[in-house]
Amino acid sequence: MPDPEPFWRTAISQVTPGEIRVRGYDLVELVGRRSFGDVVYLLLSGGLPKANEGRMVEACLVACVEHSLVAPSVDAARFVASAGVPLQAAVAAGMIGLGDHHGGAVDAAARVLLDAAETGRPDREAALEAARALEAEGRRLPGYGHPVHDPDPRVARLFEVADVLGLRGRWCALAQALEAVTEEVFGRTLRMNVDGVLAAILLEIGLDPALGKAFYVIARPPGFVAHVHEEQTRERPYRDVGWESVEYDGPDPRPLP
Amino acid sequence: MPDPEPFWRTAISQVTPGEIRVRGYDLVELVGRRSFGDVVYLLLSGGLPKANEGRMVEACLVACVEHSLVAPSVDAARFVASAGVPLQAAVAAGMIGLGDHHGGAVDAAARVLLDAAETGRPDREAALEAARALEAEGRRLPGYGHPVHDPDPRVARLFEVADVLGLRGRWCALAQALEAVTEEVFGRTLRMNVDGVLAAILLEIGLDPALGKAFYVIARPPGFVAHVHEEQTRERPYRDVGWESVEYDGPDPRPLP
Amino acid sequence: MPDPEPFWRTAISQVTPGEIRVRGYDLVELVGRRSFGDVVYLLLSGGLPKANEGRMVEACLVACVEHSLVAPSVDAARFVASAGVPLQAAVAAGMIGLGDHHGGAVDAAARVLLDAAETGRPDREAALEAARALEAEGRRLPGYGHPVHDPDPRVARLFEVADVLGLRGRWCALAQALEAVTEEVFGRTLRMNVDGVLAAILLEIGLDPALGKAFYVIARPPGFVAHVHEEQTRERPYRDVGWESVEYDGPDPRPLP
Amino acid sequence: MPDPEPFWRTAISQVTPGEIRVRGYDLVELVGRRSFGDVVYLLLSGGLPKANEGRMVEACLVACVEHSLVAPSVDAARFVASAGVPLQAAVAAGMIGLGDHHGGAVDAAARVLLDAAETGRPDREAALEAARALEAEGRRLPGYGHPVHDPDPRVARLFEVADVLGLRGRWCALAQALEAVTEEVFGRTLRMNVDGVLAAILLEIGLDPALGKAFYVIARPPGFVAHVHEEQTRERPYRDVGWESVEYDGPDPRPLP
Repeated sequence: MPDPEPFWRTAISQVTPGEIRVRGYDLVELVGRRSFGDVVYLLLSGGLPKANEGRMVEACLVACVEHSLVAPSVDAARFVASAGVPLQAAVAAGMIGLGDHHGGAVDAAARVLLDAAETGRPDREAALEAARALEAEGRRLPGYGHPVHDPDPRVARLFEVADVLGLRGRWCALAQALEAVTEEVFGRTLRMNVDGVLAAILLEIGLDPALGKAFYVIARPPGFVAHVHEEQTRERPYRDVGWESVEYDGPDPRPLP
Repeated sequence: MPDPEPFWRTAISQVTPGEIRVRGYDLVELVGRRSFGDVVYLLLSGGLPKANEGRMVEACLVACVEHSLVAPSVDAARFVASAGVPLQAAVAAGMIGLGDHHGGAVDAAARVLLDAAETGRPDREAALEAARALEAEGRRLPGYGHPVHDPDPRVARLFEVADVLGLRGRWCALAQALEAVTEEVFGRTLRMNVDGVLAAILLEIGLDPALGKAFYVIARPPGFVAHVHEEQTRERPYRDVGWESVEYDGPDPRPLP
Repeated sequence: MPDPEPFWRTAISQVTPGEIRVRGYDLVELVGRRSFGDVVYLLLSGGLPKANEGRMVEACLVACVEHSLVAPSVDAARFVASAGVPLQAAVAAGMIGLGDHHGGAVDAAARVLLDAAETGRPDREAALEAARALEAEGRRLPGYGHPVHDPDPRVARLFEVADVLGLRGRWCALAQALEAVTEEVFGRTLRMNVDGVLAAILLEIGLDPALGKAFYVIARPPGFVAHVHEEQTRERPYRDVGWESVEYDGPDPRPLP
Repeated sequence: MPDPEPFWRTAISQVTPGEIRVRGYDLVELVGRRSFGDVVYLLLSGGLPKANEGRMVEACLVACVEHSLVAPSVDAARFVASAGVPLQAAVAAGMIGLGDHHGGAVDAAARVLLDAAETGRPDREAALEAARALEAEGRRLPGYGHPVHDPDPRVARLFEVADVLGLRGRWCALAQALEAVTEEVFGRTLRMNVDGVLAAILLEIGLDPALGKAFYVIARPPGFVAHVHEEQTRERPYRDVGWESVEYDGPDPRPLP
């Protein structure tokens, strides 16, 4: 009989000698039979995909897997790796950097979509209302605009995949309606970025918007691992920016009072 | 023209406006066409699978994806999550805990296999020699024995998958030869655990043994995400073990000198 | 001549061969002449204390240095340490756990004090207004109430020290005024906790409220170090809660569809 | 009566309602009466200083508190901070980077001193033997040589402070004997760096050499906090190295097979 007030309680998985069950399924049966995408969906949603959700997840993970050193989290992981730490610790340092400005827009963009949908109005009007509300508060439209890509090539491809998998529905349409009103509302066209399309897909496949950042958290480790390994096998230890390259603009030298 | 001595240099991927290439392949073409396992293999090895390596990677990732709170890293992630931190930071705290005693045996076990193979002797003799060398130094055989499972159910299943995929070769045989000599050398049968079989597969598919821990680092985030989300949505904030449950056995109360 | 657009720019410190200057002062001159508290104040505020701010900081750091396993961050650090990771990585895992519900109230409490002060009204009225505003929004009063201590013994002592050091001013008075109105507003007396008094002191010594969590971030590492070291020298590796102690309440065993 | 086999056990501190005891002392009595250095020593050694150990610790902490962006851990913390994460999480990312090549030499240098002392020979001969043993293995002398400073200005100052505090004994002498033989053994003079002198002091004050990295772990957070705060208040979010500045030297663009 379970303890009436157990310290540890979970509905995710159960380990007993000789058996590991994940959301009720035998992990051993999943191995080699189900894709990583299916199992990610199982862990995050509580059940196996009813349709192509697992393949959609897998496409999203591939889309987010790597973006080179043009991602501050990767630079951080490499600095840390250079200092002589175990693989998982350097990857963790990079992962901490998947912050509000770096993958965090998925969650925020999903909430904009939900708010827009709640108006109950046709897509274009709902999009206008949502965009104008943000603009009035001086906020940016999360999931639109990218520092390097215009357009972000991952967007069209993920819509294409969603289409093929039968998962391109109202949320994708609404996300595109938002793009269409950016010029009118913000004065310039803001193209959807990968976070924006991930937000739409997150809602299409029924995940909790609070899991928006999960795509990055799950997808980026292979990229981080490759960078940490490259740093530790190809570069000299202790990556040093050089004291000459740091501009100091604080107080002039001064004696102790 | 690239800087003659660039601060940042990588052979992993290249980002230019409108294009992301991973090991030379267009990321957009990979999306929806290649599995996550294929792309992990691409990132870690430098090339796409020539045969079934990607499917093997995917099976290994599924095998490692979750082991409930019977993994100290998960307990750590949940304590941290309870304190009110963003998803990725709580996952990172758990990831740091994939230490030498928790996933670290893959790397060590791969080295034992390599050492055994270097003897150039038949499997059983090579295994005996390697096991005896460890025993003489008072060391354990990494990748054999498990605190909960005996046998570990993931082992037979991963061998089965390797067999089907045409990847069950000499390293798998050597790993089993090691199991077969444990009673003779260590005085009791030590069954191979998931780290042991992962070590053999790592070598079968030609990855650097230094990447042993990469399976866990890449596979566990979905499990961590599920636990962090469950903690933050189902439990009260600030998980408290209770002062009464902590046994103190340090110095008695004493006055300041 | 500095680069017109340097990638790295800082007003904190300057390193040149043979010299390290912190906010303009020679670090070597600070060593052995200035307390850690003074130097912390220098780093955070930009200048050395004009009066007793450094001694106040040092008292605050001592007050926050350790709270045993009755702090989820410490439990996390010990789980991670048990898995076989370097000292700094296990401490970092604990530090991530200094989240919004664990040290985060200093910042929030400082903002309540600032809001109350902005009303321009006498302390009691300002306190009532601020407390009622929180109550109306269904929010708690940050910095008041503690899961173990009632009262928190660190509070009276820090006020005493502030008094002796000539730093007990309007913010301390306002913080106490808030305590005095809790029964009237929230229906029960909420005693100030260590976060509440730290918030008042933070404002007394003129630090940015955004640095509220800095007291914990700076004070806790010695405690974390002691716990990680104790875990790694006194306990068995791989701290295991035991599969029997985890209550599973998810889906029943089910076959793959 | 304590549980016969408690899950959590510690000799560090005890929390009961209204009281926090650290190594037996009332934390409240320590506040304002004992320096941070004394309390660090108490936590790490188990007892309060018998002589000037606390002042020595405080001097060491000040010496290590900050080294600008000429420390990869600080660059990492700033990249992570720029991505929009809470203060403690960005500091933790930096802290992970206090790896074997970054603060890790204290521990290693202390072990060299212990090995040298174990020879039982006069300092110069012991130093020669220890240095030659390292040289024969192709290893470097940990704690000697610095990428920027020659000499490291913190060294002479810490010896001076140790002298004044009556803590400059045999370990300091032995560390200097090692410096004196570097030219003979390694072919060039290697000046002691801050890690080398910290190693000697660690042994003078009787701490466990395994705590070598503790000086950095405890000393650096104020510097990390200042950098994270500066990044988040003075720089734009999402620190981007720029795709043009990353040199890619991997495979040329290639089509999917």
